[in-house]
Amino acid sequence: MATNRVCKLAKRPPPGMVTRDIFAIEDQPLTEPGPGEFRVKIGYVSLDPAMRGWINESKSYVPAVGIGEVMRGYSVGIIDASNNPDFKVGECVQGLFGVQQYAISNGKQVGKADLTKAPMERWVGGLGMPGWTAYFGLLEVGQPKPGETVVVSAASGAVGSIVGQIAKLKGCRVVGIAGGAEKCRAVTHELGFDACVDYKGGNLAKDLRAACPSGIDVYFENVGGEILDAVLLQMNTFGRIPVCGLISAYNATSMPEGPRNLRCVLTQRLTMRGIIVFDWANRIPEAIRDLATWHAEGKLKIREDVRAGGIDAFPDVLNLLFTGGNNGKLVLKV
Amino acid sequence: MATNRVCKLAKRPPPGMVTRDIFAIEDQPLTEPGPGEFRVKIGYVSLDPAMRGWINESKSYVPAVGIGEVMRGYSVGIIDASNNPDFKVGECVQGLFGVQQYAISNGKQVGKADLTKAPMERWVGGLGMPGWTAYFGLLEVGQPKPGETVVVSAASGAVGSIVGQIAKLKGCRVVGIAGGAEKCRAVTHELGFDACVDYKGGNLAKDLRAACPSGIDVYFENVGGEILDAVLLQMNTFGRIPVCGLISAYNATSMPEGPRNLRCVLTQRLTMRGIIVFDWANRIPEAIRDLATWHAEGKLKIREDVRAGGIDAFPDVLNLLFTGGNNGKLVLKV
Repeated sequence: MATNRVCKLAKRPPPGMVTRDIFAIEDQPLTEPGPGEFRVKIGYVSLDPAMRGWINESKSYVPAVGIGEVMRGYSVGIIDASNNPDFKVGECVQGLFGVQQYAISNGKQVGKADLTKAPMERWVGGLGMPGWTAYFGLLEVGQPKPGETVVVSAASGAVGSIVGQIAKLKGCRVVGIAGGAEKCRAVTHELGFDACVDYKGGNLAKDLRAACPSGIDVYFENVGGEILDAVLLQMNTFGRIPVCGLISAYNATSMPEGPRNLRCVLTQRLTMRGIIVFDWANRIPEAIRDLATWHAEGKLKIREDVRAGGIDAFPDVLNLLFTGGNNGKLVLKV
Repeated sequence: MATNRVCKLAKRPPPGMVTRDIFAIEDQPLTEPGPGEFRVKIGYVSLDPAMRGWINESKSYVPAVGIGEVMRGYSVGIIDASNNPDFKVGECVQGLFGVQQYAISNGKQVGKADLTKAPMERWVGGLGMPGWTAYFGLLEVGQPKPGETVVVSAASGAVGSIVGQIAKLKGCRVVGIAGGAEKCRAVTHELGFDACVDYKGGNLAKDLRAACPSGIDVYFENVGGEILDAVLLQMNTFGRIPVCGLISAYNATSMPEGPRNLRCVLTQRLTMRGIIVFDWANRIPEAIRDLATWHAEGKLKIREDVRAGGIDAFPDVLNLLFTGGNNGKLVLKV
């Protein structure tokens, strides 16, 4: 009998890094799509920092994943059975299909992926949610103007790497923040940022000042904590801070400290605004169009870090996001 | 010989409450206005939390008051000598005239005060900077919509009391936060807020939840610290937080902790934005017009807490702002 290997949430995680035992991996009978539904054979699952929040019980922008439910996740795959005329067998689609080998969908909030334009994994990477997040977060909330200085934390990550490149396309001075000399080198040499500050280097404030001689106009926030504090002190008047992630706190075992320099929001009249890409759901085709065009023209480098191991590897691969072990957008090959 | 009694900044304050010895109060010879200038005999000096920041050396939205300079302050008074045709002897004017008995001005950033519409002290109170701050901060950044819940901290203070009343005029449910049963009673019974939470009552989160059954859409921030943390957890999606003041930190003797619940900015897609009233300088007549109209129609109560003692009393009266010893907009009669 055909089976579907799934990764379920077995229990709520304790504070700290995710451990294998909070997930249960098992084989289920493969089900057929009902009326109006189709089935997707998943090729790649996206690993996103947001997953750490989805398994907590606290109030958030989506309900927590329930105990015993298949772990929520963005995935991309090929339709292998369909009772829905809008979704044909053989088409490639992406959506919240979960961490499993096969998913049943009715097509709601599912996007088509054009494999003639980019390989399958890219549709959960640079042309998927991380790309859309970078696009709308930077352009709609960051509103970068030519000549301004844009700083991006987690600069070598899935979202940060694209944010910085779009800011360059818009004529900004772009400074990344990343951990370690190797990542910083990749950010400047491969992605073309003007500078990259190593937050592990021990001189964050000083290095940031040197890299941003005219101050900071836009800070695209992926990290929070001490990095946010250091950046706040160097923000220019009327600066914008799209808050995309606060990864430094996601695995905290004690309540994280907040930014001590919040007074800069007042004195410099900064705007901090949280961004969740779902809020631009009806404009995603616009993001895909621009991102794909820039990529095709060689102006936007997109780099996926594809890991093997299938569904069973999910818990370990997820933790790479929080140890900084990935190099580009982390994707699991199913 | 006629003299001008002035309050100068003698030295930088140490962290903590302001002590008398950081100011030097002395009599100077009264000077005559030069070409294009006029002289104001000051009637009232406004006491504002911002003053605590103005005497620190750290980066802010205006340069720090220099050592040996007359303390910066909003004041209102009557012109008693003039070489400027636009400012006639006998006219009442308000502006940054400083903490002193007489000021020389060239008329830049000086506003006329119409004493037929309101008594002199009100032009540094409800019809002065605190009123304008409440008006633009709430309406432009808070953007309250009818039926929404607006929470205001320091609700009995100069700005907070006006914010809440404007929000009521706009059809919102309005909840204040203030310290002590007496202030809370004044906020609901005299100012007409729907509810007021006593942050000294020991159940801030619970009391706030009871007072805001539909969550919080706009939080007008005057205080920061633990109050901000409690409010953040109850903000609704797409909520707005105009940051007008962070008074809880102004006299901190150690670096204050930041808000630990900043993740709510992300998950609820909140907008936090710092506000400084100068940024709407060209629209101040609009604020005065609306505030004066509402006041004349009995829809807006304005309450000054006028203290006697003249220039010599300034350091002690200033500290009332930080001990919560004032009751309404604090003004010093010169």
